[in-house]
Amino acid sequence: MSGSDDEPEGGTARGARGGAEHPHPLDAIFHPRAIAVVGTPSGDPHGGNFLRSLRATGYDREHALYPVNPRGGVIGGLRAFPSLLDCPGPVDHVISQVPAAAVSGLVEQCVEKGVRTLHLFTAGFSETGDPERARAERSAVGRAVAAGIRVIGPNCMGIYVPGERISFTGEPPTEPGSVFLLSQSGVNAADSIFRLGAVGLRFSKVVSYGNGADLTAHDFLDYAADDRETEIVAAYIEGVSDGPAFARALRRCARAKPTVILKGGLTTAGARAANSHTGSLAGSREIFEALCRQAGALRVENMAELRDVLVALTTSTRRVRGPGVGVLSSGGGFAVLSSDAIAGAGLEVPELPEETRRALARLVPVAGTSVRNPVDASFDGSQGRSEGDPDRLRLAVSEVAGSPVTDALFLSTSRVPWLTDSASGAEDERDPYEAARELGEQVAALQHGIEVPLLYIQRERIWGDIGPDLELARTAYAGGVAVYESIERAARSVALLLAWRERRDGLPEIL
Amino acid sequence: MSGSDDEPEGGTARGARGGAEHPHPLDAIFHPRAIAVVGTPSGDPHGGNFLRSLRATGYDREHALYPVNPRGGVIGGLRAFPSLLDCPGPVDHVISQVPAAAVSGLVEQCVEKGVRTLHLFTAGFSETGDPERARAERSAVGRAVAAGIRVIGPNCMGIYVPGERISFTGEPPTEPGSVFLLSQSGVNAADSIFRLGAVGLRFSKVVSYGNGADLTAHDFLDYAADDRETEIVAAYIEGVSDGPAFARALRRCARAKPTVILKGGLTTAGARAANSHTGSLAGSREIFEALCRQAGALRVENMAELRDVLVALTTSTRRVRGPGVGVLSSGGGFAVLSSDAIAGAGLEVPELPEETRRALARLVPVAGTSVRNPVDASFDGSQGRSEGDPDRLRLAVSEVAGSPVTDALFLSTSRVPWLTDSASGAEDERDPYEAARELGEQVAALQHGIEVPLLYIQRERIWGDIGPDLELARTAYAGGVAVYESIERAARSVALLLAWRERRDGLPEIL
Repeated sequence: MSGSDDEPEGGTARGARGGAEHPHPLDAIFHPRAIAVVGTPSGDPHGGNFLRSLRATGYDREHALYPVNPRGGVIGGLRAFPSLLDCPGPVDHVISQVPAAAVSGLVEQCVEKGVRTLHLFTAGFSETGDPERARAERSAVGRAVAAGIRVIGPNCMGIYVPGERISFTGEPPTEPGSVFLLSQSGVNAADSIFRLGAVGLRFSKVVSYGNGADLTAHDFLDYAADDRETEIVAAYIEGVSDGPAFARALRRCARAKPTVILKGGLTTAGARAANSHTGSLAGSREIFEALCRQAGALRVENMAELRDVLVALTTSTRRVRGPGVGVLSSGGGFAVLSSDAIAGAGLEVPELPEETRRALARLVPVAGTSVRNPVDASFDGSQGRSEGDPDRLRLAVSEVAGSPVTDALFLSTSRVPWLTDSASGAEDERDPYEAARELGEQVAALQHGIEVPLLYIQRERIWGDIGPDLELARTAYAGGVAVYESIERAARSVALLLAWRERRDGLPEIL
Repeated sequence: MSGSDDEPEGGTARGARGGAEHPHPLDAIFHPRAIAVVGTPSGDPHGGNFLRSLRATGYDREHALYPVNPRGGVIGGLRAFPSLLDCPGPVDHVISQVPAAAVSGLVEQCVEKGVRTLHLFTAGFSETGDPERARAERSAVGRAVAAGIRVIGPNCMGIYVPGERISFTGEPPTEPGSVFLLSQSGVNAADSIFRLGAVGLRFSKVVSYGNGADLTAHDFLDYAADDRETEIVAAYIEGVSDGPAFARALRRCARAKPTVILKGGLTTAGARAANSHTGSLAGSREIFEALCRQAGALRVENMAELRDVLVALTTSTRRVRGPGVGVLSSGGGFAVLSSDAIAGAGLEVPELPEETRRALARLVPVAGTSVRNPVDASFDGSQGRSEGDPDRLRLAVSEVAGSPVTDALFLSTSRVPWLTDSASGAEDERDPYEAARELGEQVAALQHGIEVPLLYIQRERIWGDIGPDLELARTAYAGGVAVYESIERAARSVALLLAWRERRDGLPEIL
């Protein structure tokens, strides 16, 4: 994660960062030699969500994968066993899809089988608010832990470890990356994997841990701090069961690696919902904010911000050192509102110095076209105008980026959808994916020519296939450029990064 | 716009509201008997953007449309005339695509021809900051106005009047609606037409007026206040040339009709950009805010808010009377963050009363599923679960909506894209547009059964065609239901409406 490196951090794991000499006690959880899915539904030809997903990512091609269902037979193309104890080899990791009432029996079988980790997808425990069910959770989890079995859950989706081909839903990417995500919500975990995956960001590990009856936030933060495959940590949490342990783990993790935190339930209404969801008890917003500040963690307000900041941390945007934004865009109204939005986020749109303006004036086609900042980039050729000229755009980018007032450059080549998609005279005959890839490569090439981070703004489309847009975003991201759908989100991401870096004054430099 | 009416206002114009007996002096501008496009490019087979768009919406099928180009011949399938004076019939409206240097000559021809309105698409005048060009603008516009010709622009896209089949770019909807939009930016005007058009909102008239050298914000606000085809007014403005006239017109308009205002250039950086864009001079944020507050206008911060508020004002959301939001969604993490977002917008997620909770408990499949608010609606069938049951959803909606603590209902049936699009066991065999339409109709039917407004949250998709999502949004909108892409945006829209209504205390009730 050195400052001069344009490659995204999300592409591959980069080896050790503050890594331990010996494996962390939790490491085995993420490297099971065999998995049994107990309670695999026999009615679904694919054997339900977990079996289907594990097969889709290919876990069974490298390891033993056992469906367990009282009826036996073949489920999802694999031989099913009537009970966990019937599985022929050792089983390190058990995914429980059995009903809550059957969990205590399953725990006994896990003890007998020598299982290392029990992931309870099974819900209906403490999160219901029913004291009897909460007791059942404590009892089953307590028995497992006493026997040396670590428990993930209950009421959660479990683990996604792309390097080990372990997944918990759908067909997520199988290439490992450098981001560790812990999430008390399975939907937020899956949503992050797929939404960020769609633009090319990759994870080392993702854990959805639900009620957190055994393993909980501080355990995973502590693990992530040491994990050699992890360079950036993100967390969605609803409750903190052990305040001091959490504070210790957060401090340790945030000291070593950029650590992004979203706390759900910081309002009264949200806290009530968190209690219904994962049985979590609310903490005060003030205390939590202070905790993050002291630890040097980067707190965000919602999942979109969490995703946006992860994109920023894994692209050239991480290098941003100041609030001065140079804007290249087309459309005067867009320039006005962009300026307002950037200023509204606490950044600046400084007027470019005389020298830069003179250089730009030689590049723009129309006298009077703005060269003050925002700079009118309608000579980018994106509107199909005859004056379109990528070379001039490159020169203009270089001029604006080279100015001493510029700390980051926002580029928005204007897609004007009502012109380019249906009503333009000059239809683009090329494959839209190929055209998008080419534009993405051009954007990445612009970044390689300049020192300050380039952020590309690609407005949401209003009809048609979003595939080409994602192709552009992926290509640019692979070249180290963050792509955002609005100026507001780009500006907010930069502002969050800058504020976080400033607050870390005195802590080790990790970015 | 009566409180008991579920139909959207955007669908059709509804006749007079505070209408004048006699036509407004500006009315003729929007009803030209013939249009000449002077400076039509002969190189483009379609005759350039304006001619192409006017033909696409069908103006030439009902009226005379004259391309004017020194070469004559046939342009875009129509006979072209060498000069404005050669056009065979009377011309009410001239669109100028000639270079800035040719404008003064064109003005003389307009005077001779008896033209009523000159729309100067031509740029390169006062917005350049060049005193010579500013003088040329004053001179040409002054001459036209002295001869009784009204001028729109320069440096703008002009008028869109669907009822008259007049358009300025692409192929916008030709059905008229009830929203009047005035915009100093052509891109913001076009973007609104197409983005709002995509979900079914329709306009009475849209004007892009650029530098506003003659007709400007106060003229159009004054017109819109009286226009019988207009029920709601929205404005994007960058500068106010005549403060007292603007204040008078805004007060008059906002008193009669919901009037939504976005002012660009309220920050220093934005003001500088506005000056480059339309030659506008900045005003202070405080003064502008006070002006809107006193006038009873609804001020928004960006174009997304402007669109969202227009959707709210043209659907059942306009009836919202208080801050209590009932939430039906699935996914616990989503419920937690929804609650935080709603509270963060200044609204409430009140705990449902005991009686409602008892009724809901009879409807939900799993003991302990949340019935407190947010209500877990995973029985909506959207996850393909066996317990999916639209009847139960209808009953739950009715219970939550009927509770005295509920002022609005946010519904988010969970599209879990990684399940439904590629990895779900149960593939939907139907045409995706048909399925979307059906879901939209179900959503609209839910609204018809309840008193409080229903807002539907449809999360952005992460791959594939967005067409079916728009189909759902359009169908729901046609049934009077606002569709938003996030809880944040829905909550913000409701909060803006409530705050605006409260500030209007003492003014006539217009919603």
